[in-house]
Amino acid sequence: MRRMPLTDAFFLLSESRRTPMHVGGLNLFTLPKDVDDTTFLSNLSNILRYDGELRRPFGEKLKMGALGVAGNIFWEEEDEMDMEYHIRHSALPKPGRYRELFALVSRLHGTLLDRSRPMWEMHLIEGLQNRQFATYFKAHHCAIDGMGAMHLMSSMYSTNARSKVKTSPFSYEAYLDYKEQMTRTHQIRPKESEVRAVTEMLTEQLGGTVNVGKAIGEMANVWLGRNKTLSVPFHKIPRSSVNTKITGARRFVAQSWPFARVRAVGKAFDGTLNDAVMAMCSGALRKHLQAHHDLPKISLKTMAPVSVRAAGDIDAANAVGMVIADLATNVRDPAKRFQAIKASMDTAKAQLQQLSSGEIQAYTAIAQAPLLLTQLTGTASRFPAFSTVISNVPGPRERRYWNGARLDGMYPVSIPMDGSAVNFTLVSNFENLDFGIVACRKSVPQVQRLIDYMEESLVELEDAAGIRRNPRSSSKGKLGAGSKPATKARTKTSARPRLKAKPKAAGKARPKQAAKAK
Amino acid sequence: MRRMPLTDAFFLLSESRRTPMHVGGLNLFTLPKDVDDTTFLSNLSNILRYDGELRRPFGEKLKMGALGVAGNIFWEEEDEMDMEYHIRHSALPKPGRYRELFALVSRLHGTLLDRSRPMWEMHLIEGLQNRQFATYFKAHHCAIDGMGAMHLMSSMYSTNARSKVKTSPFSYEAYLDYKEQMTRTHQIRPKESEVRAVTEMLTEQLGGTVNVGKAIGEMANVWLGRNKTLSVPFHKIPRSSVNTKITGARRFVAQSWPFARVRAVGKAFDGTLNDAVMAMCSGALRKHLQAHHDLPKISLKTMAPVSVRAAGDIDAANAVGMVIADLATNVRDPAKRFQAIKASMDTAKAQLQQLSSGEIQAYTAIAQAPLLLTQLTGTASRFPAFSTVISNVPGPRERRYWNGARLDGMYPVSIPMDGSAVNFTLVSNFENLDFGIVACRKSVPQVQRLIDYMEESLVELEDAAGIRRNPRSSSKGKLGAGSKPATKARTKTSARPRLKAKPKAAGKARPKQAAKAK
Repeated sequence: MRRMPLTDAFFLLSESRRTPMHVGGLNLFTLPKDVDDTTFLSNLSNILRYDGELRRPFGEKLKMGALGVAGNIFWEEEDEMDMEYHIRHSALPKPGRYRELFALVSRLHGTLLDRSRPMWEMHLIEGLQNRQFATYFKAHHCAIDGMGAMHLMSSMYSTNARSKVKTSPFSYEAYLDYKEQMTRTHQIRPKESEVRAVTEMLTEQLGGTVNVGKAIGEMANVWLGRNKTLSVPFHKIPRSSVNTKITGARRFVAQSWPFARVRAVGKAFDGTLNDAVMAMCSGALRKHLQAHHDLPKISLKTMAPVSVRAAGDIDAANAVGMVIADLATNVRDPAKRFQAIKASMDTAKAQLQQLSSGEIQAYTAIAQAPLLLTQLTGTASRFPAFSTVISNVPGPRERRYWNGARLDGMYPVSIPMDGSAVNFTLVSNFENLDFGIVACRKSVPQVQRLIDYMEESLVELEDAAGIRRNPRSSSKGKLGAGSKPATKARTKTSARPRLKAKPKAAGKARPKQAAKAK
Repeated sequence: MRRMPLTDAFFLLSESRRTPMHVGGLNLFTLPKDVDDTTFLSNLSNILRYDGELRRPFGEKLKMGALGVAGNIFWEEEDEMDMEYHIRHSALPKPGRYRELFALVSRLHGTLLDRSRPMWEMHLIEGLQNRQFATYFKAHHCAIDGMGAMHLMSSMYSTNARSKVKTSPFSYEAYLDYKEQMTRTHQIRPKESEVRAVTEMLTEQLGGTVNVGKAIGEMANVWLGRNKTLSVPFHKIPRSSVNTKITGARRFVAQSWPFARVRAVGKAFDGTLNDAVMAMCSGALRKHLQAHHDLPKISLKTMAPVSVRAAGDIDAANAVGMVIADLATNVRDPAKRFQAIKASMDTAKAQLQQLSSGEIQAYTAIAQAPLLLTQLTGTASRFPAFSTVISNVPGPRERRYWNGARLDGMYPVSIPMDGSAVNFTLVSNFENLDFGIVACRKSVPQVQRLIDYMEESLVELEDAAGIRRNPRSSSKGKLGAGSKPATKARTKTSARPRLKAKPKAAGKARPKQAAKAK
């Protein structure tokens, strides 16, 4: 039995039936040649239903006293582990398009985990077209964060298409193997997920030697009113429909874009890949709000985790700060919008870089403290800290396989919150950026259109930068440009909300300037 | 906007993530000949997604004040009805046996409904073997009770296999049609579901002129210590594993038995069909607890709604009382057990028949009042009112069709509670009794075995009564004796919990006395 840190317990405390606090991930695969899908999935399912020692806390459940989540919380070993409960088999109704897949994931992500068991579920999903299948993994944020979930899933995979799966990723054995491999290769830099980082810092501050009152005063001097391009939480956050109290139902959509294509936009504007990602999301939010006649005059702000490396600090890879970036949704011109976002990000990052590692932690913690309070007190929709979350998680750099099945996409499914009804999280996976967008089904009624809008925004940015696009993207078999099931979905279905995978822009080669992409 | 009665609000108040308070139903169908399943289901789905006026409260959502469920609650019209959210399409993984169907229903029944929308979901389920498909319907108990749900589903059906579906059962139009039809034919007697009836009575009492303190005193005189065969709530309720605090996960199983077969047992012992049903459930619980070395020395008690008709009272069809019956689980001999159950039921019913209609209501309300308190205060598992619930709901007497699809079974999915971890609810449907058994997945780990045990108990009762069974039951295509998918499930699967449909007993013709059945 071990005590749960307050930072983790926060996710239990702030959870309600409207705001489940679990993170998830949808992974998409293509079956190896010449295998029967049922046999193949049964085999994987049997391996996943491992009955030996599990990695923490997958074999542990909550133990609470009379005060419940308000008191001390412990993890204790689950003696009656019921793997059949955790490893689940699901199927899609015909015709098994991404549309049906997203509908299923939306529903699965909207339900609460059982607190009387280890708080995770893993779904094997059959019934997709084109010999694809999927997994949807879900775990409580008090048990794992988005980055941890990505690592967990990654521990299942191999770069070798002929490599056979022997251990469950939930086993302690697989954990040790993966840890050793990571230490050896440093393929993926450990990086805390956004909210986890904040709350851990906060606890360190509150439980440590820092005078919080003093720190707040200092921080207020640092980040309030220093200059106009610095955005701070709770300051000039507009009211809009994506910025409201949320309901319990979710809508999830996913899409891949070629890494090279987005990076080219960033480079063309002397910015980063992340700036380009933000510009895509910003453009999409602007189009969405315009379509709903709800575009605020002041710009939406996003919360974004950034990796901050102080000069000469060799440990800085772990120093994650959070910034609030201005999304410039009130700027019509795509190039100007990019520059405004970039300026806001640059200022915020420069701001952080002036601070020591300890100061960054204090800054981030203090800046975010009211967020925790507003979530806990249910007033987050009235006092929003930011308008949305855009989170970029580094993933595998090479093609991966799971027991020979090609990994076609890793789409994060994160957490919408009161005041922040839509969440954009992406994983860089091999040659793609895999976006998972999850939103409150009511506040953001047509989430699938955000995918179209993102593609349109990307095209606008490419046009503004004078980039010529390839007629075909490299994201074959993925939820990428021109992928087949998505295209079919368009033509077959009626006026119902569509699965989208923007084949339009990718289809027409536009004779412009020399290609900067690739 | 209309105010929700306190009786209905009770189900919102007493709901937790461990104890969702919705009722459900699984209906099983065989597709008409020569139809494509996808087309057929899409067509039904389109009809169900009716966008006109809905019957109450299917187009209404909750409206609460600052006090939440503790304050006044109103139903208000949902302006942004999202039928795609309520009408859902699901599929079973291969091989599409009842095993997979039950796993899906168990999961769907374990998740909370979204309180920010009209509180119901209807699932069309494809992927079953043998050209079958299913629906699972779920609605909050504050919106509808078990009997109401049965009526709702019945309003979809026709006795004519060639009759085409025109209206959604959720439409106001279908409601009016069905009501008129019911008034005309009286095919199904209106009957309140157990818990609803109690709470309504309680409210009437509390809100009316009855002195509750005085009533409690009077009732205590009436039902405490009058004679040894009368069981009362909270009195001599044993502790066992089916009688504990429950978790949020569910296990659901369903099975049909021929009406004639169960009735024959009742007749053979000069009892009722309901006595025989109780004896089956009692035997099954006894076997279950024995298998877990947990059979208490004192008998389990069940709560059962009974229809009480006072002589000369023509309105008595609506007078539903509740009794606590001794299940005689501590009696080894099946015949003696039947007699003990029958004696307990007879005493309880005789008890009620001495009372006036008003007194019955007061009696039932007062007897149950502490149950409401223990559920509300979370102490129900420490002070259980009874050990289980066995509820018998009258259903259609003739073969029914839904747009030409034959209705093969109507299996209720009711509510386990703290202190009562397993619920047996059955519907008499055409020639069968369709049982739906739902339990806490943790407290009752092998619910599917209860089905075996019930069949074994029925066989023991038949043997004790000297009844010869038919080699084949009449429940073709149902989850009945010897139905094929169930048999397959047994042979194909490993040691994992099995889907059960006891082909054993039905298979061997036993040369005994003249058949009383049929």
